[in-house]
Amino acid sequence: MRATVMRGGKLVVDTVDEPVPGPGEVLVKTLACGICGSDLHALRHADELVAAARDSGAPFSMDPGRDVVMGHEFCAEVIDFGPGCQRAIAPGSRVCSMPLLLRPDGLLGVGYSNDVPGGYGEFMVLSEMLLLPVPEGMPTEHASLTEPMAVGLHAVEKARLAPQDVPLVIGCGPVGLSVIAALKLKGAAPVVAADFSPGRRSLAEAMGADVVVDPASCSPYESWREVATPQDAAAAPMLAFLGPPLRPGVFFECVGVPGVIDQLMRGAPRGARIVVVGVCMQQDRIRPTLGINKELNLQFVLGYEPHEFANTLFDIAAERLPVQPLITGRVGVSGVAGAFEELANPEQHAKILVEPWHD
Amino acid sequence: MRATVMRGGKLVVDTVDEPVPGPGEVLVKTLACGICGSDLHALRHADELVAAARDSGAPFSMDPGRDVVMGHEFCAEVIDFGPGCQRAIAPGSRVCSMPLLLRPDGLLGVGYSNDVPGGYGEFMVLSEMLLLPVPEGMPTEHASLTEPMAVGLHAVEKARLAPQDVPLVIGCGPVGLSVIAALKLKGAAPVVAADFSPGRRSLAEAMGADVVVDPASCSPYESWREVATPQDAAAAPMLAFLGPPLRPGVFFECVGVPGVIDQLMRGAPRGARIVVVGVCMQQDRIRPTLGINKELNLQFVLGYEPHEFANTLFDIAAERLPVQPLITGRVGVSGVAGAFEELANPEQHAKILVEPWHD
Repeated sequence: MRATVMRGGKLVVDTVDEPVPGPGEVLVKTLACGICGSDLHALRHADELVAAARDSGAPFSMDPGRDVVMGHEFCAEVIDFGPGCQRAIAPGSRVCSMPLLLRPDGLLGVGYSNDVPGGYGEFMVLSEMLLLPVPEGMPTEHASLTEPMAVGLHAVEKARLAPQDVPLVIGCGPVGLSVIAALKLKGAAPVVAADFSPGRRSLAEAMGADVVVDPASCSPYESWREVATPQDAAAAPMLAFLGPPLRPGVFFECVGVPGVIDQLMRGAPRGARIVVVGVCMQQDRIRPTLGINKELNLQFVLGYEPHEFANTLFDIAAERLPVQPLITGRVGVSGVAGAFEELANPEQHAKILVEPWHD
Repeated sequence: MRATVMRGGKLVVDTVDEPVPGPGEVLVKTLACGICGSDLHALRHADELVAAARDSGAPFSMDPGRDVVMGHEFCAEVIDFGPGCQRAIAPGSRVCSMPLLLRPDGLLGVGYSNDVPGGYGEFMVLSEMLLLPVPEGMPTEHASLTEPMAVGLHAVEKARLAPQDVPLVIGCGPVGLSVIAALKLKGAAPVVAADFSPGRRSLAEAMGADVVVDPASCSPYESWREVATPQDAAAAPMLAFLGPPLRPGVFFECVGVPGVIDQLMRGAPRGARIVVVGVCMQQDRIRPTLGINKELNLQFVLGYEPHEFANTLFDIAAERLPVQPLITGRVGVSGVAGAFEELANPEQHAKILVEPWHD
């Protein structure tokens, strides 16, 4: 089958073996697969990614010295079944799945494995017990956004929002945008969001952000503070030296480069929770005294729970989570390498979908 | 009055003005005052301390270029009242107080202020509304340990312990020891604690730690893992590639030097909460991917709430919190500088009390 292969730190188009479904596995045809920021990281810093997974005791890993077909944000069509399947979903049905393959000897990460291909190829194998049928009438491209939107929903679940919380989202790439959409789904208001890119700021508005800030012209932390100060606070100067009362702060780090966590810790109000969703692969610097003096809480998050993944699919289908504005490009297998280049420009793109059969 | 004064980065004995109680303030005679690790920090790194407080928007600060009489862990005797006091506590009574002075124009930190002296001098002024009478029969030296023991209680409260949690305390200086005592007070079991110093390890046992580890001979994280593995886990290898099931981890960072937070993040199991109690004044390095891949939570903590401070005094009085083993020395005003030197040796000392009238 045709696939875009990560080989020696480059993306090449090649013909690779079609995967064979094992026991409890289903052969599927990839209909659409989003390109994720983690894939860009993996291509440039594969060794770091693997070292980080190993240091964290992750239950699976890959060898970047061998071929990898990436792609873990997919919608696919059921083609055939391996041995021992229940066959509850008919061939021809469209499905989503968490990008995990459950095998007796361990987990494989679909899209980060040497042993099975991800969605940048024409076929994949998936675990039957993880398949979710795509609701009738739901566009395939919307279904393929389940995975990245589930990341935002999970981050918001881990934040344990309370009604008084005022969220601030730093960074409006795909991760920040999915966090904004999930915050609005959960009823948070107002949601403040910041990004240097005008294009991403308009996407933040499309996702439902109430206040959108350009950090080049005004501090996101000051904007947050204005919005989080109750209207009548200025009239009630009790213990005025402590400053005006503020609604609680829940800050989402959705950038993932060194220095941003420290910046959020500096900008955060006392008692704030900081949810780290952006994936900074490098070593980072923080000033613990900022955390200590303000009693900050840092919650690092990754992925999603199975029920969050399923709920995301249904929330997108019901249009409670907007995804159409995020789709800014489509490529075939031969266009993946170029798409990786283009994604470096935040003005032009949010999510590019790979459609392996439309080359 | 006689006092040990921090002046130009040194501790000198001098005669300074006796403080005068303002409205709602009480003049007290210092009976005993513990030397805190933060005071050692402040003497060596006063500029860093002040910069960190300013960066965090702390409501009070001090100018290290001017005299400071430190000391914020005290028990004192009521001598006289300023204007407008309720005088509910009779002169001659012993009292404790959070080391804060509530003034109309702002908060002052008793022991970290240029305007009022802390407990390394013969007299202090305190806010009447913060005074707590010391229970009859309670040794004065025990009452003076209320402040550092409240730090441990607060850290444990912020950890929101659940019955299944297995705590690990890294560092058994005064902060770690107060955390261990608070964990046992709250019923945590087993409590694992680690320190390189044999003296501190025996104090950890005296505070109630169930498993005490020398990191030079065995990894605290491995010891924790053994203890946190349910007895019957080995016999139930379901999803064996994920490793044995573990009880949840709550790790307390009680060292406060660069690199320790990263070490805990590396050693922590998936989903662990790390409570940062040690005060690292320097910039620190972390690997965010360790936090992300394991979905760690970092809770930075500082100080205590008023009710925690009061409860700590009563828990010490009722001998639910052991403190006697912590008191390893006593000095007068002239002995403070020497005591600061001696505290660098973890074998010899935990808590040295300053008794300004016993010189």
